[in-house]
Amino acid sequence: MKTIPISKAFTLIEPGPVVLMTTSDGEKNNIMTLSWTMVMDFSPRFAITTGAWNYSYHALRNSKECVIAIPTVDLLDQVVGVGTCSGTDTDKFEKFGFTPLKGKHVRAPLIKECLANIECRVIDIVEKHSIIVLEGVEAYVDDAREEKRTMHAIGDGSFVVDGEKLDRREMMRAKLPEGV
Amino acid sequence: MKTIPISKAFTLIEPGPVVLMTTSDGEKNNIMTLSWTMVMDFSPRFAITTGAWNYSYHALRNSKECVIAIPTVDLLDQVVGVGTCSGTDTDKFEKFGFTPLKGKHVRAPLIKECLANIECRVIDIVEKHSIIVLEGVEAYVDDAREEKRTMHAIGDGSFVVDGEKLDRREMMRAKLPEGV
Repeated sequence: MKTIPISKAFTLIEPGPVVLMTTSDGEKNNIMTLSWTMVMDFSPRFAITTGAWNYSYHALRNSKECVIAIPTVDLLDQVVGVGTCSGTDTDKFEKFGFTPLKGKHVRAPLIKECLANIECRVIDIVEKHSIIVLEGVEAYVDDAREEKRTMHAIGDGSFVVDGEKLDRREMMRAKLPEGV
Repeated sequence: MKTIPISKAFTLIEPGPVVLMTTSDGEKNNIMTLSWTMVMDFSPRFAITTGAWNYSYHALRNSKECVIAIPTVDLLDQVVGVGTCSGTDTDKFEKFGFTPLKGKHVRAPLIKECLANIECRVIDIVEKHSIIVLEGVEAYVDDAREEKRTMHAIGDGSFVVDGEKLDRREMMRAKLPEGV
């Protein structure tokens, strides 16, 4: 798992993949599956929508830290599994065979099996809309991983996997931020 | 372009495709390309991040209406074109060959060439974070269209196209909202 420049971290979230979010309440780690995410700027700041109905919310709110991990298609069944049970009665790292790794800045763990991980701090909570604003502080990618295709939740129980990649860098050059 | 139940409209945004947003200032229509979107609930509410640096922002703010249109991969060059010029000096419908269609609820036009369109009202603006909260009021899909693959911006000038679709409805049944 290799550090990448933090200025590139938004490119992990911008395509809209299903992600895993880890938290730590100081005693135990938890994971949730999340599809409601949005890039807000290149620093990078991200929004997620979640609230008290999710067990992870309390650890997120109290610790003001989390890790956003990007899983690939070979992990789909574990990702769906994580999303369909609760940390109230389940150790999801153990149940789904994920390995927690220590990050540099936050107590929430990275997930070894994922393609990428972003250590994040909670910088604001917009209570009215259940929006959490995160700031990415360190990002990692596992370049050695063969499977790099992420998946996107449709929201009806089906998922679309990354297909071909198309390059429009020349057309967009003037609009791209520094360092990507 | 056929109406679909509004309870399914979130499934158009949840996978994270690049979208087009149309606005009308009462005199002329405009379009912008947008990748920073997030589902917030199933009603559906959506967040987008944009601000005064975008020409469309003023029409969006004043009219409190827009249409979110979902383009497919055959429209990629037009979508990138829309995203790299400004409505201040360009009629983007004309320049990129998009056809405005009249919706039922808002003055902002649907885009005929897109796979889907969602008429939206602005229900809040979180000024501090440049987040606009939208509510979808009517949604349409062009079922007759052959090309249905959407694209996802990486943020570095490249795009990933929808690939294979995987079904996990059985595993997720208990977690799915009504009507999807």
